[in-house]
Amino acid sequence: VKISPVSSAQNATLKRIRALHQRSARDKEGLFLLEGAKLLNEALAKGVSVLDVVVSKSFWTEGMPFVDQSNIAEMHVVEDKIFKELMTTNTPSGIIAVARTQQHTLSDSIKNGETLVVVGEAIQDPGNAGTLIRASAAFGASAVVLTRGSVDAYNPKVVRAAMGALFHLPVIVGLDTGTVLSQLKQSGFRVLALDPGARDRPLATASFKRPLAVVLGNEGNGLSAEAMKAADDLVAIKMSDTTESLNVAVCGSIVLYECARQFGSLGC
Amino acid sequence: VKISPVSSAQNATLKRIRALHQRSARDKEGLFLLEGAKLLNEALAKGVSVLDVVVSKSFWTEGMPFVDQSNIAEMHVVEDKIFKELMTTNTPSGIIAVARTQQHTLSDSIKNGETLVVVGEAIQDPGNAGTLIRASAAFGASAVVLTRGSVDAYNPKVVRAAMGALFHLPVIVGLDTGTVLSQLKQSGFRVLALDPGARDRPLATASFKRPLAVVLGNEGNGLSAEAMKAADDLVAIKMSDTTESLNVAVCGSIVLYECARQFGSLGC
Repeated sequence: VKISPVSSAQNATLKRIRALHQRSARDKEGLFLLEGAKLLNEALAKGVSVLDVVVSKSFWTEGMPFVDQSNIAEMHVVEDKIFKELMTTNTPSGIIAVARTQQHTLSDSIKNGETLVVVGEAIQDPGNAGTLIRASAAFGASAVVLTRGSVDAYNPKVVRAAMGALFHLPVIVGLDTGTVLSQLKQSGFRVLALDPGARDRPLATASFKRPLAVVLGNEGNGLSAEAMKAADDLVAIKMSDTTESLNVAVCGSIVLYECARQFGSLGC
Repeated sequence: VKISPVSSAQNATLKRIRALHQRSARDKEGLFLLEGAKLLNEALAKGVSVLDVVVSKSFWTEGMPFVDQSNIAEMHVVEDKIFKELMTTNTPSGIIAVARTQQHTLSDSIKNGETLVVVGEAIQDPGNAGTLIRASAAFGASAVVLTRGSVDAYNPKVVRAAMGALFHLPVIVGLDTGTVLSQLKQSGFRVLALDPGARDRPLATASFKRPLAVVLGNEGNGLSAEAMKAADDLVAIKMSDTTESLNVAVCGSIVLYECARQFGSLGC
């Protein structure tokens, strides 16, 4: 691996990294940031295309034993003070990389007989989106759709909360609920939507027969009218009587758990 | 309700609010912040002691139809620009309040025959802590313990993620795992701990007989040695074979869901 010291904060790579803190630059360039050795290693292991790697001086002198350097051609080494400005989080870490985003289509994601798709409607919070992607991977879902109006799937907080799961399964963005669900139904999917109002239909009594699309409503507004209309089954997670509700990523994870439990395997 | 315009950012109430962004001030004063009308209303409804209320000028002129003003003695009205500095988040909201923290003890929380306690070990991320508290309330748990080393339960991000659940059930902080679990065992609790290594013991096969303590390990390090030792049962949530794992709040929520499902009621 070639080591290139960088002393100016105005270096083009560093400028690019700082620009990628913003969604507009990520969308325009088709690039995103990998912060920390763990995420970088996971991305490299999954064949994500990594363009630039920058390390802080103190991280570099520690020898970086936790970074798989076999697929990294060049590294830029910068002063810790400059490095700090590159990160989107205060969590201590000495390495950041620029990687190419992956564009997935819904048709590609289901064409190989994939049969469990999680659909999050206009998910706003990056922690929720990332946690949902992580749980979807853990329970063997085939794909996650974040409908139009959702947070950017490559938002640094989504990437962090997904803990590498973003590289394990396709995440499809930019479509509206109606389009997604009609395409899935045409491909033979049943649509199961979580609706806190469906109190007479507890989750555990639902059928998880696949192919199955699991729909989760927006954090504030719940299910859209389109999702309500398209749903073959509306189910609820039983909760205590007060005004309690559950976080959307928690809801999705519980549905996926129930699905896995009923099938006794992780075909889900 | 008495309306007091405040024009100086150096006003004592405003200074106090800004100080309460920091844990040290919250711990010292026994006070915390309620941001937004929804949380403030929930806190008032649950009898939380609210000391100061500050609204932005534009929020005030909108008449504040969503704020229950019956239990508010006085409101400070400030310019929007000053108000913005009081908030810990960029989420638009025109009201913030100072409230008194509630100190709960473990003995008080279980003395009335309460029989399901969720124990989170050194939970680091405020979103995780808040989401776990929210799920615990939703599934009817009696109390949540965040062991020593956890994020401050009154961290603004915890308060937000808990969505009012912080006022619905006692959250006990500052104790170490060993102390908590030995006290619970002495009171007749069984200890069920989630351990990703317990692959031969799937969650659904566990007994949820109460009184029950559910233990969740720290995000990075998992269960402590003390928890491993104290556990009557170590169980795992079955996941796909790769290196996947689940978020700690998701894990806790799935255990609580399973508990509720098996009992068919929300005695959990």
